[in-house]
Amino acid sequence: MTDRPLDVLEETLGSEVSVTLKGGEVYDGVLAGYDQHMNLVLEEGDNVTIIRGDNLVSIQP
Amino acid sequence: MTDRPLDVLEETLGSEVSVTLKGGEVYDGVLAGYDQHMNLVLEEGDNVTIIRGDNLVSIQP
Amino acid sequence: MTDRPLDVLEETLGSEVSVTLKGGEVYDGVLAGYDQHMNLVLEEGDNVTIIRGDNLVSIQP
Amino acid sequence: MTDRPLDVLEETLGSEVSVTLKGGEVYDGVLAGYDQHMNLVLEEGDNVTIIRGDNLVSIQP
Amino acid sequence: MTDRPLDVLEETLGSEVSVTLKGGEVYDGVLAGYDQHMNLVLEEGDNVTIIRGDNLVSIQP
Amino acid sequence: MTDRPLDVLEETLGSEVSVTLKGGEVYDGVLAGYDQHMNLVLEEGDNVTIIRGDNLVSIQP
Amino acid sequence: MTDRPLDVLEETLGSEVSVTLKGGEVYDGVLAGYDQHMNLVLEEGDNVTIIRGDNLVSIQP
Repeated sequence: MTDRPLDVLEETLGSEVSVTLKGGEVYDGVLAGYDQHMNLVLEEGDNVTIIRGDNLVSIQP
Repeated sequence: MTDRPLDVLEETLGSEVSVTLKGGEVYDGVLAGYDQHMNLVLEEGDNVTIIRGDNLVSIQP
Repeated sequence: MTDRPLDVLEETLGSEVSVTLKGGEVYDGVLAGYDQHMNLVLEEGDNVTIIRGDNLVSIQP
Repeated sequence: MTDRPLDVLEETLGSEVSVTLKGGEVYDGVLAGYDQHMNLVLEEGDNVTIIRGDNLVSIQP
Repeated sequence: MTDRPLDVLEETLGSEVSVTLKGGEVYDGVLAGYDQHMNLVLEEGDNVTIIRGDNLVSIQP
Repeated sequence: MTDRPLDVLEETLGSEVSVTLKGGEVYDGVLAGYDQHMNLVLEEGDNVTIIRGDNLVSIQP
Repeated sequence: MTDRPLDVLEETLGSEVSVTLKGGEVYDGVLAGYDQHMNLVLEEGDNVTIIRGDNLVSIQP
């Protein structure tokens, strides 16, 4: 009930997430990594995408 | 009367909040977590949403 | 005559303020708290609003 | 001739300034305070306005 | 599975990447360097481009 | 040939500069001061203008 | 092959560069200096231009 945001990301590693960016784009993929700036690594099949954290609006595990 | 903003968030854990973002979107949910950047974790039923703090305009407990 | 901005906020605790945001919105309420980023806590009747400091243009006690 | 910006603000305390913001608004008043982020306190008659430094374009003493 | 974003960049050195910027532009090239701000050096034939990290939306190795 | 930007500002103290801001405005004046954020003090006759560094695009001595 | 962005700038000192800004403007000149914020000093004939790093999109040596 009192998970901090980065704790939730840690628990989400290896699971599907839906990421909404400031420009309105949505990225879906498996969360393969993150760092303290909320930069993310998403995997979808063979495709890997690094997303810069300052573009994020929300992340839905 | 002199609560600091993060103290108010701390007291609000587990309660409903309404969050307004810079883009005008409003998110409602139970505040399940936060950090010192005002990154938030909201829960609404089974859905969890991490919101990046730099998108926030206001939070209403 | 030489009050620093956070000193003025400190003196304003418990009094009415009018807050103008970058988007043009105006929030009125009693200043119930603040921090060094100028994040604010406003109270108006039973309603509490946390406003993130980086949205502020001006605060009028 | 080689005054640093905050030194000029210091010398301007108690005098009239004209402040232009990024949105184009102009605030006139007596400079009653400032801090190292260029947050300002302006006084005009009985009115006090705190202006957040990151909105400033220019200050004219 | 739990690579951090900068680890993925490190592994990608010398390989083709596709970089999307906030303005919508896409840069393709071989990733020849990066730093902790995600500033990038891309090479495409004889052309070298330094891209400032704060413009990035995503990087696809 | 290898002057750093703040070194060039230092050498320019007391000389005319033309400053272009993000909003497209151009300010001309004698550079009377600066700091490490590129906040500037310009003088033109009796007029003094403090310009906040984060509005700058370019400075031409 | 693994040059960091500031290393590439260092090697480029004294050579022509083409600099693209967020507003779409392009500046050409000899790179005469830079700092860790990617603030740049460009020379073109007798003209010197200081460009603030946070406006940069890309630099092409």
